[in-house]
Amino acid sequence: MKKRKLETCLSPLLYEPGDHKGSIVVIIDILRATSAICTAFENGARSIIPVETVEEARQFKEKGFLVAAERDGYVLDFADFGNSPFNFTRERVEGKTIVYSTTNGTGIIKMAESASEIVIGSFLNITSLTRWLEKQEKDVVLFCAGWKNRFNLEDSVCAGAFAERLLGTSLYHTICDSTLAVLDLWRLAKDDPEGYIEKAAQRSRLRDKGLDDCIPFCLSADFTESIPIIKNGILVNNIS
Amino acid sequence: MKKRKLETCLSPLLYEPGDHKGSIVVIIDILRATSAICTAFENGARSIIPVETVEEARQFKEKGFLVAAERDGYVLDFADFGNSPFNFTRERVEGKTIVYSTTNGTGIIKMAESASEIVIGSFLNITSLTRWLEKQEKDVVLFCAGWKNRFNLEDSVCAGAFAERLLGTSLYHTICDSTLAVLDLWRLAKDDPEGYIEKAAQRSRLRDKGLDDCIPFCLSADFTESIPIIKNGILVNNIS
Repeated sequence: MKKRKLETCLSPLLYEPGDHKGSIVVIIDILRATSAICTAFENGARSIIPVETVEEARQFKEKGFLVAAERDGYVLDFADFGNSPFNFTRERVEGKTIVYSTTNGTGIIKMAESASEIVIGSFLNITSLTRWLEKQEKDVVLFCAGWKNRFNLEDSVCAGAFAERLLGTSLYHTICDSTLAVLDLWRLAKDDPEGYIEKAAQRSRLRDKGLDDCIPFCLSADFTESIPIIKNGILVNNIS
Repeated sequence: MKKRKLETCLSPLLYEPGDHKGSIVVIIDILRATSAICTAFENGARSIIPVETVEEARQFKEKGFLVAAERDGYVLDFADFGNSPFNFTRERVEGKTIVYSTTNGTGIIKMAESASEIVIGSFLNITSLTRWLEKQEKDVVLFCAGWKNRFNLEDSVCAGAFAERLLGTSLYHTICDSTLAVLDLWRLAKDDPEGYIEKAAQRSRLRDKGLDDCIPFCLSADFTESIPIIKNGILVNNIS
């Protein structure tokens, strides 16, 4: 049996849409967008509309939508709440459609739109998403959102955790140095992900803004079985 | 004393010229361009003219220059020799000006031209170049050439080796996740760099083309004290 290809993209600037048309793209932006999205679906959100610009988010707000929007960790003044997964409580999101715009995550969904499928990955849904990927018989790209187009440690480590599981199934192979690197970083981090992430730039940024309370949660595996997936430009929960 | 900033760029696509105008950029493309350049100066080359295109290289050849030029590991038909450091023997290069064009390395020198200084780094000159950097009182960017704009393991590991030495002096600090990552990769590789690089994509490419004989040499420290530096667009040896 021909093995499926596993690749990793370390930053949006390194993504090559033409190379991944038949692939499933797993978007990873764990501090905090993709963790928040997984949490929203666990808490019963009906769908999430990703938007790229502040202006689009504002227009949705004016139409009466629930809007989660921030830039650089700060909630936009017109938004209902920001980017912490702790904001997406069952009381707020159950049965609702949420409009969502963030610093890094949303633009990437647009970049990857030529792929076969786009799904949202984080530690929070790692087991269920890995199992779902295994059933799809397609190549996989682990797409790290990074920070303002730069490489970041936390998304790389999470990509490494996915890579370890996928390569461990023997359904996948890789000849991609980025995948080999994130796998090595994950092996250094896995015994104590929170301790490892302590040195990351985003760790300091969130601490400086008092937004770091969610980090242990974002690094914990399997809070949810939800598999957020893009259908017609909107995120829905694949198991709902 | 204010510490100098150490940053790492994992691929040409991630390089931001505007951020590094006052910095020294260390170009790292160890398999094989920057190892070959260091070897050429150790063997007495007078200067190296980096050119970007095959056409430029051909024009220099027609003017009578010694030309080293390859694409994807294959020597161009009009060139005197290709990219292996073993080609740059004393018999061939002593006292000569060499025109040099390669797959990844040459274009990067152009990208970095707005920096304060551009120098060539490899394991072959790691100690002398580190000592020179320490004397310069400037921020440093370790610029990994990668492979066709992609991240690669071998340049990352070499950048990690430079980072370990520079941060070890306490003259430098870093808040750059890429630097932290290459440092971790180097720590995994340092006891057996050749064994670590075995899994890298470029390792397989060079093996497939029968060009891998130089790898142990390219991974060995301190073959030379030369510090290739760009002056007026041309590489010269800073200690000559």
